[in-house]
Amino acid sequence: MSHQPLLFTPGPLSTSLTVKQAMLKDMGSRDQVFMNAVRDIRNGLLQLAQVSKEDGYECVIIQGSGTFAVESVISSVVGEKDRLLILANGAYGERIVKMAGIHRLNHVVLRFDEDTIVTPEATEAFLQSHPDITHVACIHSETTTGLFNPVTAIGAVCKQYGKVFIVDAMSSFGGVAMDMKAMQIDFLVSSSNKCIEGVPGFAFALCKRGELEKAKGQARSLSLDLYDQWAGLEASGQFRFTPPTLSLMAFRQAMKELEEEGGIPAREQRYKANKQTLDEGMTALGFKQYLKPEIQGHIISSFLYPSDPGFNFELFYEKLNKRGFVIYPGKLSKANAFRIGNIGQIFPDDVKALLIAIEEVLKEDAVTV
Amino acid sequence: MSHQPLLFTPGPLSTSLTVKQAMLKDMGSRDQVFMNAVRDIRNGLLQLAQVSKEDGYECVIIQGSGTFAVESVISSVVGEKDRLLILANGAYGERIVKMAGIHRLNHVVLRFDEDTIVTPEATEAFLQSHPDITHVACIHSETTTGLFNPVTAIGAVCKQYGKVFIVDAMSSFGGVAMDMKAMQIDFLVSSSNKCIEGVPGFAFALCKRGELEKAKGQARSLSLDLYDQWAGLEASGQFRFTPPTLSLMAFRQAMKELEEEGGIPAREQRYKANKQTLDEGMTALGFKQYLKPEIQGHIISSFLYPSDPGFNFELFYEKLNKRGFVIYPGKLSKANAFRIGNIGQIFPDDVKALLIAIEEVLKEDAVTV
Repeated sequence: MSHQPLLFTPGPLSTSLTVKQAMLKDMGSRDQVFMNAVRDIRNGLLQLAQVSKEDGYECVIIQGSGTFAVESVISSVVGEKDRLLILANGAYGERIVKMAGIHRLNHVVLRFDEDTIVTPEATEAFLQSHPDITHVACIHSETTTGLFNPVTAIGAVCKQYGKVFIVDAMSSFGGVAMDMKAMQIDFLVSSSNKCIEGVPGFAFALCKRGELEKAKGQARSLSLDLYDQWAGLEASGQFRFTPPTLSLMAFRQAMKELEEEGGIPAREQRYKANKQTLDEGMTALGFKQYLKPEIQGHIISSFLYPSDPGFNFELFYEKLNKRGFVIYPGKLSKANAFRIGNIGQIFPDDVKALLIAIEEVLKEDAVTV
Repeated sequence: MSHQPLLFTPGPLSTSLTVKQAMLKDMGSRDQVFMNAVRDIRNGLLQLAQVSKEDGYECVIIQGSGTFAVESVISSVVGEKDRLLILANGAYGERIVKMAGIHRLNHVVLRFDEDTIVTPEATEAFLQSHPDITHVACIHSETTTGLFNPVTAIGAVCKQYGKVFIVDAMSSFGGVAMDMKAMQIDFLVSSSNKCIEGVPGFAFALCKRGELEKAKGQARSLSLDLYDQWAGLEASGQFRFTPPTLSLMAFRQAMKELEEEGGIPAREQRYKANKQTLDEGMTALGFKQYLKPEIQGHIISSFLYPSDPGFNFELFYEKLNKRGFVIYPGKLSKANAFRIGNIGQIFPDDVKALLIAIEEVLKEDAVTV
């Protein structure tokens, strides 16, 4: 067991000590060592999505949180004459809707209930009746609930109808095998503090170059100009504006450790093992999950509050915290739930330790589940 | 001497080992320990500007680089019916002009040569002839050259004419004593990796609350919405979107170390001592500075290339780098120069060591200055 609290959250999450130790050396942002690290990260991320520059894909790193990178893509690639369809079944889909509104993009929303997935059938029917749509945005792992939308099938529909496909894979990329080309994704967004197991500070967009080039001069802000950010990195290997140097050095180390673990397939297996251990233990304790198992992903799960009126989430959270386990509050619009993540430097034995702590806390407070 | 390379740059700069070690513990972004750190940082930054919440000032932290925070302010506080005057005498003033253009703000630019300061007299004359101006933006320490614009005198003019005054004090805040209230600054922007000596990852805006409140619903983006970012921090103590948790923990440590050093006055003295050591040594080596001494600040200096055609900046930079000293390229539009910064965890003895290295490299390459 680590002496650090273990984070069972959707990120920032528990990272290895060696990842954090990669931040112990100051780094000039225009220095060759740093620029080499950035180049390795950008190429390595494309490789993790099973594509390369040679295939026509590019990696653009954006300072800030994952939302900054999603907004960079949305507000850069959807042009004045374009129309964006947002497929939404949770808070992160709605966040894209909010962005589209602020940037006054021509957009339309196809909504699904929080406890159901976006279906390719509904998407296809919508595209048929709205031929003016040019771009489609979808969340892969909706962290609101933990469900996985079927992005491969949705991507096939998008391509059949000639649409640009944007996927927010924030909480899943690195923890789920994805072939960006086979999945027909034009823009895939994720961040430093998710399944690659780095620390927060930046996010990235993996982009089909031909589509990225169309974004030239189209951005609605300076900081979040996806094309200019890419052009700057390509021209000089440097960022237009100060990058989070040490977060990037940590991330390069995290990518090495991902490779040492056996790459994404091995990591996916570990996360699935965490999830299975969690599911079995929580079921044994009497907890019910919000989602049906067939649409539940292995990144994060929503557990309904026990019906016992004696259950107080703040107290439950606090007591687990004191025992060294950080869980995550819920974000559902219609049900009370808390969330437990399976990602980061946590292993089935850590999940077992969490389960023991949960059992203890419930007993201590005489809560029946 | 440190075993790390020393950064004589405008940031990211050399930081103490203890600042970097504050990043060795994982931190949940919704955890009380982290939220307390954020609260302490926000209050502490106001204190460094000699104001407080009680005085009507607020601190808003923005993820990303300093430019993100400048854009957050510019694109949030200048409303549809407002008109922004940008006082520009370098690349950072021009960057605000670029932002204003992208956001289609009603704006006008008063330009000064790169080797001259913005004058309060010219500002006053301009405001008299342009009564529709509502906001004025100015750079304090223009990192392009290293000059200090007289923001106190410009602030007095702004207030006399009832304008909202926005100061980009990116590279100077923490290294120059500033009383935000006495200087009549409504919005002051700086970042984590400058004179407070933290690591990169975020920036901040210190804001007069009454003016900040006017920005509600006015922002041109979601990520850079200054008002919403503030409202979120106030409502829950949490960030709307994932913060760079570890950069913030490092920054809290950096603020403690600033206090231990004796606060901003002591740090200002150290930077001035660095600057004096540098000036004397570089003069002795024959180097000429780009700026006249009376407008030169103590943050960073621009040194003209030696006239000797044998001088090759890339080689010079590389050789200094190999000796453990990182300097900075120039950014002047009309002259060839390189820059040397005086900020960060560097002391007069480090400057002396740099000077010896410079002398060695010049001799090695037989360059006469």
